[in-house]
Amino acid sequence: MRLSQYFLPVLKENPAEAQIVSHRLMLRAGMIKQSSAGIYSWLPLGYKVLRKVEEIVHQEQQRVGHIPMLMPTLQSADLWKESGRYDAYGPEMLRIRDRQDRDMLYGPTNEEMITDIFRSHVGSYKDLPLTLYHIQWKFRDEIRPRFGVMRGREFLMKDGYNFDLTKEDALHAYNRHLVSYLRTYERMGLQAIPMRADSGPIGGDDTHEFLVLAETGESEVFYDSEITDLTFGDREIDPNDHDACRAVLEEFTSRYARTDETHDPEVFAKVPEERQRSARGIEVGQIFYFGTKYSDAMNAKVQGPDGKQVPVHMGSHGIGVSRLLGAIIEASHDDKGIIWPEGVTPFHAGIVNLKQGDAEADAACDALYNSLKALGLDPLYDDRKGGAGMKFATMDLIGLPWRITVGPRGLKNGVVELTSRRTGESEELPPEQAVEKIAKIYAGIV
Amino acid sequence: MRLSQYFLPVLKENPAEAQIVSHRLMLRAGMIKQSSAGIYSWLPLGYKVLRKVEEIVHQEQQRVGHIPMLMPTLQSADLWKESGRYDAYGPEMLRIRDRQDRDMLYGPTNEEMITDIFRSHVGSYKDLPLTLYHIQWKFRDEIRPRFGVMRGREFLMKDGYNFDLTKEDALHAYNRHLVSYLRTYERMGLQAIPMRADSGPIGGDDTHEFLVLAETGESEVFYDSEITDLTFGDREIDPNDHDACRAVLEEFTSRYARTDETHDPEVFAKVPEERQRSARGIEVGQIFYFGTKYSDAMNAKVQGPDGKQVPVHMGSHGIGVSRLLGAIIEASHDDKGIIWPEGVTPFHAGIVNLKQGDAEADAACDALYNSLKALGLDPLYDDRKGGAGMKFATMDLIGLPWRITVGPRGLKNGVVELTSRRTGESEELPPEQAVEKIAKIYAGIV
Repeated sequence: MRLSQYFLPVLKENPAEAQIVSHRLMLRAGMIKQSSAGIYSWLPLGYKVLRKVEEIVHQEQQRVGHIPMLMPTLQSADLWKESGRYDAYGPEMLRIRDRQDRDMLYGPTNEEMITDIFRSHVGSYKDLPLTLYHIQWKFRDEIRPRFGVMRGREFLMKDGYNFDLTKEDALHAYNRHLVSYLRTYERMGLQAIPMRADSGPIGGDDTHEFLVLAETGESEVFYDSEITDLTFGDREIDPNDHDACRAVLEEFTSRYARTDETHDPEVFAKVPEERQRSARGIEVGQIFYFGTKYSDAMNAKVQGPDGKQVPVHMGSHGIGVSRLLGAIIEASHDDKGIIWPEGVTPFHAGIVNLKQGDAEADAACDALYNSLKALGLDPLYDDRKGGAGMKFATMDLIGLPWRITVGPRGLKNGVVELTSRRTGESEELPPEQAVEKIAKIYAGIV
Repeated sequence: MRLSQYFLPVLKENPAEAQIVSHRLMLRAGMIKQSSAGIYSWLPLGYKVLRKVEEIVHQEQQRVGHIPMLMPTLQSADLWKESGRYDAYGPEMLRIRDRQDRDMLYGPTNEEMITDIFRSHVGSYKDLPLTLYHIQWKFRDEIRPRFGVMRGREFLMKDGYNFDLTKEDALHAYNRHLVSYLRTYERMGLQAIPMRADSGPIGGDDTHEFLVLAETGESEVFYDSEITDLTFGDREIDPNDHDACRAVLEEFTSRYARTDETHDPEVFAKVPEERQRSARGIEVGQIFYFGTKYSDAMNAKVQGPDGKQVPVHMGSHGIGVSRLLGAIIEASHDDKGIIWPEGVTPFHAGIVNLKQGDAEADAACDALYNSLKALGLDPLYDDRKGGAGMKFATMDLIGLPWRITVGPRGLKNGVVELTSRRTGESEELPPEQAVEKIAKIYAGIV
């Protein structure tokens, strides 16, 4: 993309309404615009990152065999009355009456609807196990929406639901979700720690939240510092292997790690003192096993191998897709702006032309731009007429991991400058080598 | 995908509520499930096609330089009061009151919101031309939702908005949209004819609807039969070339083609009688030029080259993404089920194992499956235990364009059977050749 043809309305001033850095930077970098309280438009740059995050979630869900579908945003109140949650949910549920005076609502989650789909179509244990998921906009009418997309009212969530014959199978689905979530977050450059959590209105016994450590997190968390040494890495885990999935769960959840809701000072005291940590965290996902809570209430049964009707064991599993953008920025920025991890960056590299209009500089930039495109990469070329200072500031603000700076002086020596946004380090090298180096960095990511 | 691990709840019986063939077939093929009046869940097979249609729309929009973004589903009523449409829109607008008693609505379209984004961020003619678009769920509270996704209440739409300094530039944007739409529909295997239409509540002088001819269409249309001979084909049109885009518009709109709303029997009578046609059509898109209607009402001005503030010229342009699935099926089916065009088929080919459990047949199917996957193709392998009749009926119903049938008898002679869903013609050939042939068909499509 050439910047002169793009829509990137960066702000010079810090917006007064933004209290936390991710909100501030998303506004300043022209990623989002508030349209009403807690509801945002995703401007082109923000939308691009949102789609990348969404795509990683899709890929990792499908890698472990979960099946994508899509449920609507608006739901009939009837199903929620059946489960008993319509009255229980409280004022965060946006209730709507349509022109025929039917009670509707903007779905905050989909346990009821997916259970209805399941019971309408599945009748035998032979069709299990089954895990369906979707990525859809949800609404929670927060009394005080704040922190930009971190605590918005309309937000994008991946929610998945497993249906299993036995508790053991459902717990495997739980473990499998944990495995896939660890991989998902790492691909976005995040360390998200599974912590024992409270189940809240979803219900159920087993639940873990995934938290990204950040000063601006809304939850206080307590953990054994050993947990931050764990990484999932490149492991190949067979999603059907119960033991392998359980081993990952045990590895990542055996050390103390809890949110304030479940924190137990007595248990925490047993962690060696030098490893006791308290910090703040941003919740970016949660997994639940809730057994037959919904299948009992909504009569979702299958015929078991013995011919008897049994309620299915279920769980639900969420990733806060839009919120993740805020979490990534909270975890990765500096005074100048955002620093995107390579896995989610909106453009793979920026090209800065120091002397737009200079025939040689323009030609060199065009050549770099075309070479990167030819390799399947997506560069942003700042081809505006303007000073180096403004161009560098824009690139630093929007946080592309790599910048190529092209100017007449370097070109005389046959070189351009390649700069890492993260380290600030630069090197001079011939344009072809800069392209080669960037291609190498993104090999296996793009 | 192996069918035994998929969620494909096909129905044997014709659902009573479905009046038209696309609705019936989408229900029967397990593509959708109604969740409440005019609101559908997209089951895995339906979702897969929806994503393919969406992806084609994205690609063709970006091919001509339009910039993707995403606006939210819920909007504040304030902007609509500013434009004067809040009161004018009528009961099809779903009006919502949030917990703070603010008037909200579920967006049926986005002229106001995009104009607000534009006026907040763009101040100079130097930032024009600009065309932004998004693909987002919309809601229109139809009094009688019917025909499945063809006339649902919650529906997915691409809506794009151009901002130009002059009427001439805005009319070029109009023409450019027409060019991109012709290409978009053809990639989906559809002939959609631009017809002069009525502007309705959007307003404006120039507007064309794109109609797919089908017996079940909701509009009566009148046209010169020569128009159905036109195809856009593989033309490479430079989206910035005003003359080239205008020439396409003239070619595709100079012959008589109108909906009943704009039909003029006197003008129609001048078409040679043997070329006069009347038929029914399904509207799958519409383009508008409405000048400064919204920019005047909402004060969206830029500084022109002479330093004066001038209201921008705008247009809006929509494609009914979810409705397109219905239109494609209306245009392409037979008594046995759907016949997907290659460009949007949910799976590229089906593999039917006539003797699941037979070691040789299973191995041959696995090999075919893996070969197709290795080529980047997406096969659906019916690995269920069940008779040939049931398997053929399922494949015919869900409409994959190509089926490979594998059985012990053929394998003895080293062959499998490759069948075209459209023609019903079969040929026997070695498995490798079947794979090669399918790969060739999809070259340039996948």
